Amino acid sequence: MNYRPLFALLALLAVQGISKAQTTPSTVADDFKQSSLNQPGQEYPQVNSQGYARFKIKAPMADSVKVSLGLGGRGGTRLTKGADGYFTGTTEGPMDEGFHYYHLTVDGGTFNDPGTLNFYGSTRWESGIEIPAHDSDIYALKDVPHGHVQQILFPSKSTNTSRRAYVYTPPGYEKERSKKYPVLYLQHGWGEDETAWSNQGHANLIMDNLISEGKSKPFIIVMTYGMTNEVRPGPGALRNFKIDAFQTVLTDELVPYIDANFRTMADRVHRAMGGLSMGGMETHTITLAKPELFGSYALLSGGLYNAKELEGKAKPNLIFMSAGSRERPDGVRNAATELKGTGYNAVAYVSENTGHEFQTWRRSLHELAPMLFTK
Amino acid sequence: MNYRPLFALLALLAVQGISKAQTTPSTVADDFKQSSLNQPGQEYPQVNSQGYARFKIKAPMADSVKVSLGLGGRGGTRLTKGADGYFTGTTEGPMDEGFHYYHLTVDGGTFNDPGTLNFYGSTRWESGIEIPAHDSDIYALKDVPHGHVQQILFPSKSTNTSRRAYVYTPPGYEKERSKKYPVLYLQHGWGEDETAWSNQGHANLIMDNLISEGKSKPFIIVMTYGMTNEVRPGPGALRNFKIDAFQTVLTDELVPYIDANFRTMADRVHRAMGGLSMGGMETHTITLAKPELFGSYALLSGGLYNAKELEGKAKPNLIFMSAGSRERPDGVRNAATELKGTGYNAVAYVSENTGHEFQTWRRSLHELAPMLFTK
Repeated sequence: MNYRPLFALLALLAVQGISKAQTTPSTVADDFKQSSLNQPGQEYPQVNSQGYARFKIKAPMADSVKVSLGLGGRGGTRLTKGADGYFTGTTEGPMDEGFHYYHLTVDGGTFNDPGTLNFYGSTRWESGIEIPAHDSDIYALKDVPHGHVQQILFPSKSTNTSRRAYVYTPPGYEKERSKKYPVLYLQHGWGEDETAWSNQGHANLIMDNLISEGKSKPFIIVMTYGMTNEVRPGPGALRNFKIDAFQTVLTDELVPYIDANFRTMADRVHRAMGGLSMGGMETHTITLAKPELFGSYALLSGGLYNAKELEGKAKPNLIFMSAGSRERPDGVRNAATELKGTGYNAVAYVSENTGHEFQTWRRSLHELAPMLFTK
Repeated sequence: MNYRPLFALLALLAVQGISKAQTTPSTVADDFKQSSLNQPGQEYPQVNSQGYARFKIKAPMADSVKVSLGLGGRGGTRLTKGADGYFTGTTEGPMDEGFHYYHLTVDGGTFNDPGTLNFYGSTRWESGIEIPAHDSDIYALKDVPHGHVQQILFPSKSTNTSRRAYVYTPPGYEKERSKKYPVLYLQHGWGEDETAWSNQGHANLIMDNLISEGKSKPFIIVMTYGMTNEVRPGPGALRNFKIDAFQTVLTDELVPYIDANFRTMADRVHRAMGGLSMGGMETHTITLAKPELFGSYALLSGGLYNAKELEGKAKPNLIFMSAGSRERPDGVRNAATELKGTGYNAVAYVSENTGHEFQTWRRSLHELAPMLFTK
């Protein structure tokens, strides 16, 4: 199967999705506050209640500082130099709610904003900014019992190394020493890695909150790196991507390691796979290749299932497909309708006013989790 | 007790320690390779077999790029601009073995090297570079059973939030469901945070290797953030540092949470505290204030104990004090001799040819672990 056109499209969406604009208000509200992702004690970047972002970068002898974040297709935000040696500027319009990657161009070189934390995306650690969302409550850090996110190093003979994964264990996992849990294998997108779902996605906080409200069963989430070949920066890397090696790592090495080292319910009904963007493509391929391993499937801005390809295979308990409203939401809606018509438990979810970005995927996980492992 | 002078000294050591030089060879060996801490696919920075570091930064319209890393007191390494728009340069002499923080100054602004991973130090995420060490085997990623490092969020009433800690559980912890383990509480230095001991220190790999060789008992390590008040960047932050609030978090909130949520041997004999630099100062204060909680103490480039202050308190099983040979190693040696003379089990360790940097502390943990919990 040739995924090149689809991967190219996903990469394009990922780049364009960064800087979609909402309707531009007539005045810019004067209520800028530090972004929640700033490094300790850093005043900038700031965001206001309308979703504008404001930047301030010290570079006294530089001629030009540009921020990659801004209005779609207009090349980001060019900062203006002040007499104090600081470059400042505000996005031309409001940004979409949620998390955005960005970087600076300082006199022609690519650097991160020293004011913010870094997040792995676009095959590099990028600056991150958070535009407060109306529904940020779903991933807020609350005074509820918290699960743990642990880094594991699992042996991988096929790639001749120990590979890293992160494992979310739900609240109570340590105390209830004989209870067994279902497992969701959850993949990141192209250019990201196994840190994305916790750092950018707040998967652990989303689950902690859902579980404390009794809305989701407690389950384990496993997140690992979805590429096994040498990946060089740039879109060219996708051309060389082969899923076979990753499938071996996931199904022959990671799944057995998790089942041996965590208290899992080790059957297909209690094992799900999902992923965002490229991780959705991986989910699609691997669940179709190994239907005996996974009982529920989730594609988050990452392709569609159709009845034909599922025919004759072990029937999934759930097929979840989602997209941001700025992507092509009719695709997931139509696919779900079609699958339901042929007897599948298929669900479409569309995140309003978001694109190919993490706010879509945070919301998607929040919708998906309550539907998982309910049988 | 007034720690200001000691904190100021530690901060000074931390800054100076970055760029100590060894003897300069007459020729620079032409065997530069990528630093092991580079971002995926990044060719620079590079290091050679003698410990020189070489940098290459794209900034076509910049006038000046400087690297903070270089010979002590000579202001780092100034890069030279080439016709291709890249600035390049090599440190004037070899660097000490091990991990070094650094950053760039690009036209007067402070940025990280886009080629490397970032590490939290100096109250900001800094670039990191690794000079291959002759004893790097102690923290190498090997094909041995690996423990897990998990992020926990523990409730803290005293600071009115959920606070983050990392917990290393040794290999086999998940499988051996009734075994209980001793615990080492291990603190970072000033300007660092709870990520330092895993990221920069490789504490998990050091333990995995020691345990697989039968040289250390398996135990849990807990690492949390050692400052609780608002910390602003700059040395001034230390002036406002008060240990009381952190002591409350550690002894009244974190220790009970760990004992409730992990399979610990919850008595003083099986609970140790250690820390590097400022974390050593914290260890010193807290173990003297709460001798009923901790049975073994470790100060890594972080002060000394004397017999007088220990008098009349529950006797520690072990007092471990270490320093790099470029610090003041006689201090730890003399203190250990004195303590041994008054009947304490005190050990001094000096790391050769290293300063107030992580190579000293990696080696210190490697020496300390086999001595812990042996009774």
